[in-house]
Amino acid sequence: MACGLRSGDGPDLGLIVCEGPASAAGVFTTNRVKAAPVLYDVEILARNAASIRAIIANAGCANACTGEPGMTATRHTASLVANTLGCPSDQVLVLSTGVIGRALDMDKIERGVGNLNSSDAETGGASVARAIMTTDTKPKTAGEDVTVDGGVIAIRGIAKGAGMIHPNMATMLSVITTDAALPAAALQTALAAAVGRSFNCVSVDGDMSTNDTVLMLASGASGVSPTGAGLEAFTAALTRVCTSLARQIARDGEGATRLVEIVVSGAADEAEAHTVADSIARSPLVKTAIHGGDPNWGRVLAAAGYSGAPIDPDRLSLTFGGGLTLVRDGLPVAFDAAAASALLKTDPVAIRLDLGRGSGEATVWTCDFSAEYVAINAHYTT
Amino acid sequence: MACGLRSGDGPDLGLIVCEGPASAAGVFTTNRVKAAPVLYDVEILARNAASIRAIIANAGCANACTGEPGMTATRHTASLVANTLGCPSDQVLVLSTGVIGRALDMDKIERGVGNLNSSDAETGGASVARAIMTTDTKPKTAGEDVTVDGGVIAIRGIAKGAGMIHPNMATMLSVITTDAALPAAALQTALAAAVGRSFNCVSVDGDMSTNDTVLMLASGASGVSPTGAGLEAFTAALTRVCTSLARQIARDGEGATRLVEIVVSGAADEAEAHTVADSIARSPLVKTAIHGGDPNWGRVLAAAGYSGAPIDPDRLSLTFGGGLTLVRDGLPVAFDAAAASALLKTDPVAIRLDLGRGSGEATVWTCDFSAEYVAINAHYTT
Repeated sequence: MACGLRSGDGPDLGLIVCEGPASAAGVFTTNRVKAAPVLYDVEILARNAASIRAIIANAGCANACTGEPGMTATRHTASLVANTLGCPSDQVLVLSTGVIGRALDMDKIERGVGNLNSSDAETGGASVARAIMTTDTKPKTAGEDVTVDGGVIAIRGIAKGAGMIHPNMATMLSVITTDAALPAAALQTALAAAVGRSFNCVSVDGDMSTNDTVLMLASGASGVSPTGAGLEAFTAALTRVCTSLARQIARDGEGATRLVEIVVSGAADEAEAHTVADSIARSPLVKTAIHGGDPNWGRVLAAAGYSGAPIDPDRLSLTFGGGLTLVRDGLPVAFDAAAASALLKTDPVAIRLDLGRGSGEATVWTCDFSAEYVAINAHYTT
Repeated sequence: MACGLRSGDGPDLGLIVCEGPASAAGVFTTNRVKAAPVLYDVEILARNAASIRAIIANAGCANACTGEPGMTATRHTASLVANTLGCPSDQVLVLSTGVIGRALDMDKIERGVGNLNSSDAETGGASVARAIMTTDTKPKTAGEDVTVDGGVIAIRGIAKGAGMIHPNMATMLSVITTDAALPAAALQTALAAAVGRSFNCVSVDGDMSTNDTVLMLASGASGVSPTGAGLEAFTAALTRVCTSLARQIARDGEGATRLVEIVVSGAADEAEAHTVADSIARSPLVKTAIHGGDPNWGRVLAAAGYSGAPIDPDRLSLTFGGGLTLVRDGLPVAFDAAAASALLKTDPVAIRLDLGRGSGEATVWTCDFSAEYVAINAHYTT
């Protein structure tokens, strides 16, 4: 629904409700400056992860850098929802996104929660995905049904994000729901594993927000309680759902015209591969070159070189588009510039750098960097 | 002179000559991918820093990612200059800047060095400053005469840089000359100290190049040999010259419309202050907000929060323009948005963040981030 928190009359408030108490898990920003809802959710999950009923999410105001009054506003938001649902307020989690440093307008939240009408309810969460959009151009949803131990488990996810996206997560909110029957601790383990290979592998601009949160609820309604290989299959499906959302976020980065997939292989281990891929994904020079279809591959090697990883320049090999080799063992290879340029204008763009050091591999998703990014961000609050 | 290395007919080759052997010092990129001239200069300085005669510099080709043939080209360039001057080739240092991964066209270098005419020679280096420009819009020079121990020492510097600028240095070349009489070891110490508080405090886009180099020659012609307090005064003057060049580089960042000076105070120590200032200076969201005059101060706090420094959000205080307070002790202060916006449109922009933790302070220079940056970098090689 629209409660007036954002300029314009778009929806800016959404509620996700589970009919009974659900197990819950969460992964949060590592920014030292954490928004009030992040601090609140961490506190609630620490004591009540076995029994969550609802998640209330707003756009238009991040409720970050708002001190104790911000914390009070978040608690009040949760209690308003709890009153509506007839449950204790520590069964309600809160998500906020939008401008930092402004107080949450509690009159609007109060009216909004009062007007949330169960007749508007739908299954799947697409309307909440729309309500939490900020500079996103489209809502992001994903889902999968996975057969585990003879039963079917549904996994559904929504997400938002567009700017200030960087490992580990950024102006990124996501909610994943499932009808699996899993205790909170197992759910947390599965979610952390999935986030590590999906949302934490996305970079739009290298900025990391105060509000990044992925929350997950498991209702148990399927009656299927995965363990062992079943739990692995569940985690793999969850990772695919999160990866789909992560790629949607990268592709819809502010001003982006296409998705860029950077694979670093031949690293000493996965962590080293991730460090190098991340450095490339953060480089404005790489991302502007991709935007222009300019096969200026030296920028990729330079970004790898300053990543901090102990790479050996003479062992680097670089390909575009899964096949066109530009560098082999540290030396330039003659290549068709028009073909290379065309590969940089293909969506998604595929860049692979092999370090020739070991078997570690990692994939990071980002987007090209356009003048539109600057236009969006030069006047966000004005 | 113009030897045809760059497109167009602008000057792209310059030679700096000392009439006798000079002490020399150098500070180089820490990128693992180092250009051939960087590797070459490091090698020459390791064995011959007491006796350097010349520095040859070219634009149009960085001679980076060019392997052993690139190293051969650099050595050959030095030997061509040595033949012209009638000195051993290990008295010649080499600087290159431009596109990465292309071979240096030795026919052009050979013709160029052959045509370098001593009748074109001038004192001060402004023409070399022009020859090494890439996307710079203006040549950068600075100088100071400092009275030490009753004598006068001249310090003169030139620099280039515009994109790929980030601590520790980037597509940045600088040559500093002085007529002080200093042994190479003392010169190296003075230069390293000056670079640490000048060139290493500049960030344009967070990228760090393969070619960054600051070289310094001391001819001894003044007959003044500073020691003790005199050496301190010399180092302070050298730092001012380097700072002037560093600020010119930031102000002339690709697409920049103004200089931004970020001061972080109240840190545990200078290193921590530098880490936080650097994180703010790298943030595309901060830099686009400055470009648009949007006082979206939350982005500054968010960038400080993800810097890795153990800051306490409740102790942060933020001012713009040396006086307008936006945040005090972690809480937003009501401020005049129009005044704040005007301060972000003033050149230079002054942003000060106090961490409330200690007495460490550092200053970093950057520039605003405009759509023009993207336009410049989307088509650099094409």
